[in-house]
Amino acid sequence: MQIDPTQYIRQIIRNVPDWPKPGVTFRDITPVLQDPRSFRVLIDLFVYRYMGQKLDLVAGVDARGFIVGSVLAYELNLGFVPVRKKGKLPFNTVAEEYSLEYGNASVEMHTDAVRPGQRVLLIDDLIATGGTLLAAARLLQRLGANVVEAAAIIDLPELGGSKAVTDSGLSVYTVCSFKETDR
Amino acid sequence: MQIDPTQYIRQIIRNVPDWPKPGVTFRDITPVLQDPRSFRVLIDLFVYRYMGQKLDLVAGVDARGFIVGSVLAYELNLGFVPVRKKGKLPFNTVAEEYSLEYGNASVEMHTDAVRPGQRVLLIDDLIATGGTLLAAARLLQRLGANVVEAAAIIDLPELGGSKAVTDSGLSVYTVCSFKETDR
Repeated sequence: MQIDPTQYIRQIIRNVPDWPKPGVTFRDITPVLQDPRSFRVLIDLFVYRYMGQKLDLVAGVDARGFIVGSVLAYELNLGFVPVRKKGKLPFNTVAEEYSLEYGNASVEMHTDAVRPGQRVLLIDDLIATGGTLLAAARLLQRLGANVVEAAAIIDLPELGGSKAVTDSGLSVYTVCSFKETDR
Repeated sequence: MQIDPTQYIRQIIRNVPDWPKPGVTFRDITPVLQDPRSFRVLIDLFVYRYMGQKLDLVAGVDARGFIVGSVLAYELNLGFVPVRKKGKLPFNTVAEEYSLEYGNASVEMHTDAVRPGQRVLLIDDLIATGGTLLAAARLLQRLGANVVEAAAIIDLPELGGSKAVTDSGLSVYTVCSFKETDR
């Protein structure tokens, strides 16, 4: 019997109730990563999706976006660019702010991370409100990149992020999605 | 003419003077990552070193250790385990403290990240004082892992970290090293 890869990954994701706060269920990808088989299946979902596309770079969002993003870059013979939290990058940077539940945060990239016209895949582990991904996409676009798609492992559609990213004109891909009541 | 891979990588690492503070030169790996050729050469140095070894898991240290660590895990058909900064992991965790210049910090792992007896490669981007790597190694050992080696891209031997990790009984591998005066 052949497995359905997205269902297989979805089953291995761990549901952690009441984290990071009461009433919220966290979707934990670490069980997928630590098993060689599911880790391979997860990565290959992205590899097969993007192997036929003309891409120059994979941009991964700090920190879980580095995990899938860097493997994908290596497998597809692309460069890898980190989109980092504020204050982590040592060279000339550009920053974009986004809103959190309380206050703001920002993401940064090196100004020489992307050249104008480069085709970039943007990747993170999860899309919740979409604030981080949208800020990262704006950064890439300010540097002249063509953001080919914004991708993540998990979508939480009830939080509206994937819709917001789509509404901004970007293509979105996620492996699986969870509603808050899903166990 | 064939390139020497470690010299090639070392040349592409960017020296950023006076960062994160005056008098310190930061060694920036982002130029290595964003070029597909140097990224491949970098990863393959680790792949070839470890492909003949019996390993079960690669443990990567938050956040730059995720980049090489996850690719290596995929390439060698191993699981990947994140060693995270405090408060990032949602399930049951164990923590180890280490000293910073001012105060302490700690790293955490999920208690089910490693099974006793598993052979683990520990990886980060850089060894400075070695505090983070030593704390991560203690965590892995508390969970029963056999830490086969602690590896990084860059060693700063003047800060004593690689010696401290070696003195603790661990094998250490780094791709290249810089003295403070190296440009």
